[in-house]
Amino acid sequence: MSSSFDTHLDRNSANHASLSPLSFLKRTASVYPDRPAVIHGQRQYTWREVSERCHRLASALSKRGVGKGDTVAVMAPNIPEIFEAHFAVPMVGGVLNALNYRLDAASIAFILDHGEAKLLITDKEFSPTVKSALEQLGRKIPVIDIDDPEAPGGELLGEMDYEAFLASGDIDFRWSLPEDEWQAISLNYTSGTTGNPKGVVYSHRGAYLNAVGNTLAWGGMSGHPVYLWTLPMFHCNGWCFPWTITAVAGTNICLRRTESKTIYQAIAEHRVTHLCGAPVVMQMITNATPDDRVPFDHEVNMLTAAAPPPASVLADMAREGFKVTHVYGLTESYGPAVVCAWQEPWDDLPPDEQAQKKARQGVPYHLQEDLMVADAKSLQPVPKDGATMGEVFMRGNIVMRGYLKNSKASDEAFEGGWFHTGDLGVWHADGYIELKDRSKDIIISGGENISSIEVEDVLYAHPSVAAAAVVAKPDEKWGETPCAFIELKPGANVSEAQIIEHCRENMAHYKAPKAVVFGDLPKTSTGKIQKYILRDQAKQS
Amino acid sequence: MSSSFDTHLDRNSANHASLSPLSFLKRTASVYPDRPAVIHGQRQYTWREVSERCHRLASALSKRGVGKGDTVAVMAPNIPEIFEAHFAVPMVGGVLNALNYRLDAASIAFILDHGEAKLLITDKEFSPTVKSALEQLGRKIPVIDIDDPEAPGGELLGEMDYEAFLASGDIDFRWSLPEDEWQAISLNYTSGTTGNPKGVVYSHRGAYLNAVGNTLAWGGMSGHPVYLWTLPMFHCNGWCFPWTITAVAGTNICLRRTESKTIYQAIAEHRVTHLCGAPVVMQMITNATPDDRVPFDHEVNMLTAAAPPPASVLADMAREGFKVTHVYGLTESYGPAVVCAWQEPWDDLPPDEQAQKKARQGVPYHLQEDLMVADAKSLQPVPKDGATMGEVFMRGNIVMRGYLKNSKASDEAFEGGWFHTGDLGVWHADGYIELKDRSKDIIISGGENISSIEVEDVLYAHPSVAAAAVVAKPDEKWGETPCAFIELKPGANVSEAQIIEHCRENMAHYKAPKAVVFGDLPKTSTGKIQKYILRDQAKQS
Repeated sequence: MSSSFDTHLDRNSANHASLSPLSFLKRTASVYPDRPAVIHGQRQYTWREVSERCHRLASALSKRGVGKGDTVAVMAPNIPEIFEAHFAVPMVGGVLNALNYRLDAASIAFILDHGEAKLLITDKEFSPTVKSALEQLGRKIPVIDIDDPEAPGGELLGEMDYEAFLASGDIDFRWSLPEDEWQAISLNYTSGTTGNPKGVVYSHRGAYLNAVGNTLAWGGMSGHPVYLWTLPMFHCNGWCFPWTITAVAGTNICLRRTESKTIYQAIAEHRVTHLCGAPVVMQMITNATPDDRVPFDHEVNMLTAAAPPPASVLADMAREGFKVTHVYGLTESYGPAVVCAWQEPWDDLPPDEQAQKKARQGVPYHLQEDLMVADAKSLQPVPKDGATMGEVFMRGNIVMRGYLKNSKASDEAFEGGWFHTGDLGVWHADGYIELKDRSKDIIISGGENISSIEVEDVLYAHPSVAAAAVVAKPDEKWGETPCAFIELKPGANVSEAQIIEHCRENMAHYKAPKAVVFGDLPKTSTGKIQKYILRDQAKQS
Repeated sequence: MSSSFDTHLDRNSANHASLSPLSFLKRTASVYPDRPAVIHGQRQYTWREVSERCHRLASALSKRGVGKGDTVAVMAPNIPEIFEAHFAVPMVGGVLNALNYRLDAASIAFILDHGEAKLLITDKEFSPTVKSALEQLGRKIPVIDIDDPEAPGGELLGEMDYEAFLASGDIDFRWSLPEDEWQAISLNYTSGTTGNPKGVVYSHRGAYLNAVGNTLAWGGMSGHPVYLWTLPMFHCNGWCFPWTITAVAGTNICLRRTESKTIYQAIAEHRVTHLCGAPVVMQMITNATPDDRVPFDHEVNMLTAAAPPPASVLADMAREGFKVTHVYGLTESYGPAVVCAWQEPWDDLPPDEQAQKKARQGVPYHLQEDLMVADAKSLQPVPKDGATMGEVFMRGNIVMRGYLKNSKASDEAFEGGWFHTGDLGVWHADGYIELKDRSKDIIISGGENISSIEVEDVLYAHPSVAAAAVVAKPDEKWGETPCAFIELKPGANVSEAQIIEHCRENMAHYKAPKAVVFGDLPKTSTGKIQKYILRDQAKQS
């Protein structure tokens, strides 16, 4: 059926533009040219200067033949150069592939090969890995070195230095928005605990919408936030925050090394208002030694993901001056796509009940469309009873385009018209979801499902525990039993029996770990505990 | 040129959804079902209730055959029913045509005819006009009456009452997002001071983006704002605020009658945080009598458009507890698309210089793309010198699809790939635009252009002046001379000579009015002064 509304009312350049985060830089550089945009050690750039540097970089890339659909890889910590690449690469129609600098040479070589990187920008701190990766790659690509004075040193591998490369570019470089907002803007490889990493493709449209979504999900973002870069920009493009902070004309505080001392120093010196990070960042904050601490007198907002923050950690964080919001997402959802939105009636709850509410993953982001917990096969939603377990599914504009050159994996991920997260959880009566485990992390003991997260929550509540992870240990009688790995707080002293007793006092006995191993926990560069390593250890012990 | 990014990475229901404000209602009703959504006199609806009422209305419309591309007209003040129509009509794929209730019967009949309204929902207060309009229309359409207890009375014209109509609908009505986000969501007729009104068509995409844009342009919107409906919802769909307030789960305070007393009462009773309106609303606030005032102790944010707020008014508003932000837009730009974004260095300026900064229209909304002042014919941008006059042009997603059934007017409006606003102004060095006049409002005296706004600014600075408008008066010698129409403050007493002297003291003598007329100014329902009436008066006097 057609109506008068379908005729003579066409898209044209006056009333239609592709959604792209590039528009945010254009606006902010024009409206707030003199506001501080990026601060890194002694270096400070205004939004005018950042914009100029991005234009130069785009021009230099273009002169080197990088154009639409070409991948540019960047190996760098959270410094100005990787921030600039978030704009310059899309300006030429290219695709940014920010590399996880904690990966080994073979993985980097795999990614450079699979992602078809046409050029690499690399920080000299990572030269040993990168040099080896480039040797393994088996084809030559142009390499540009970042020679950051804040770096601890390292060999220069490339044909020229980043600043010289910028100087070869034109400040008046003319770019345009992509004709199709669905065009790829970035490529992010999943950490890939098993098999080869998968290349997750983001679009200009999705990046734009999640960048804006961050401002809706998180309070105080519209007043020029001062944002501390504790979350790696290589991780889901820093949850789209390079684009968010640009949209709201905030200030980016770079951080080459995320440590207790550098965090406190930056917060105090720059009056940081917002930061993001995995639980490991909260540990750095709460477990900081007196020497590492620098006093500050303002409230700091923190978004955290990856594991629900236990009550004790939230209480510690509040005492330190941090207001924590819990979010959830995956590389496939541009970072956070679910937020534990605060409800006013919770204000009156006792702290441990507040923490219980806050530990849930929550509800969809404002600009994400749908979220459900459903049967993994039938996709029938589970009842909202807080008990029935199902898989978490999402759909909307904040879901990846797919996996690069892996249509089998893409098809599986999108089967039935929903994105399959692979995470297991329950749906509460108020519509909030709560993760119980990754499908592969569930422990099946005597036919009963045990959520490793539930056991970990109890472990975290023990005063001596700094970090905890629970995995399945094969068992002749029970099939599997929970095995706990525990990192103690400095100076703490506690026995295996005491830990097990603590668990039995606080949960069903069959859920309590049968074995406890003390020591440092293996973590990924983004602070996620690497359970596959622990699982191997549990098998062998 | 194709790349790996173009293959096997297709849009599907998991990773792509049409942008539509309907998603905001779905999310907010799910996440905040028990929060107050709409308050009108004794009536209070939560978000769950509003959502249920919208579903019922959509179902009832659907049962009456209203579907994709069908227009539903609504004649109502700012009450719950017109708010609900902003969601229910698009839920069936329909197009909302909110009518200006101050128009005469002939104009309403023209709009119902031209917009091809398939059904009319009308408030009994406006029955005399509507009855006559329906008689003039010459075809029968179903009419639903709003029988609001807050209404002053009036005849019921239709086949049934709104609540009975809702009751005929199904609470479980299933709707879906439009397949194409470019689909029409609403139809708004320009006030049309000359010739027939033009029907401006909005899309789901544009409405979604401007609704979100409002939250970025205006502080404090993310914390459940309490929004007072002083701006008519029939005016550019209330600048998209029905959708904005839904996105951020705020509370809508309805207001059947916008008057000093009702404004103060609502602010004090409901702790209103935000409101919008034309200068006439600021006049109601600052000129309220002691009897009309109700004390309150919090800050209220106000967006105002239509005329730049003079320093004296801003100072008065600040004293009353209102923080005013100046925006600019047209029906064709979904309401505000330009904002006078505050700059921190302005904090240190004296109040009159702050007011000068604030009186400028400003910079594009975050989610609008482009704005320029350019030569009306060549579309060459004027220099950013604050002096060279040009026409204001916009382009981006917050520009209308076009004028309904008027491709000639649409083509003219979009000539050269930009939307021609018809407003004249200058471009300042800092990128802020400042309107000087509508093209037709400029006064040409002895070959010199005189900006009527500039003369009005000087008049507003006079302590006795409540409102002022300046138009051209034909003159044998000079061609035209400025003629001032002035509304005095209650109890004020001033002569024509004193006003002219005040002008001569504060601006170039040739710009001072040659004649001054005292009395009430004719205003449109949205508070715009109707200069075409004054122009006729000036000619005849």
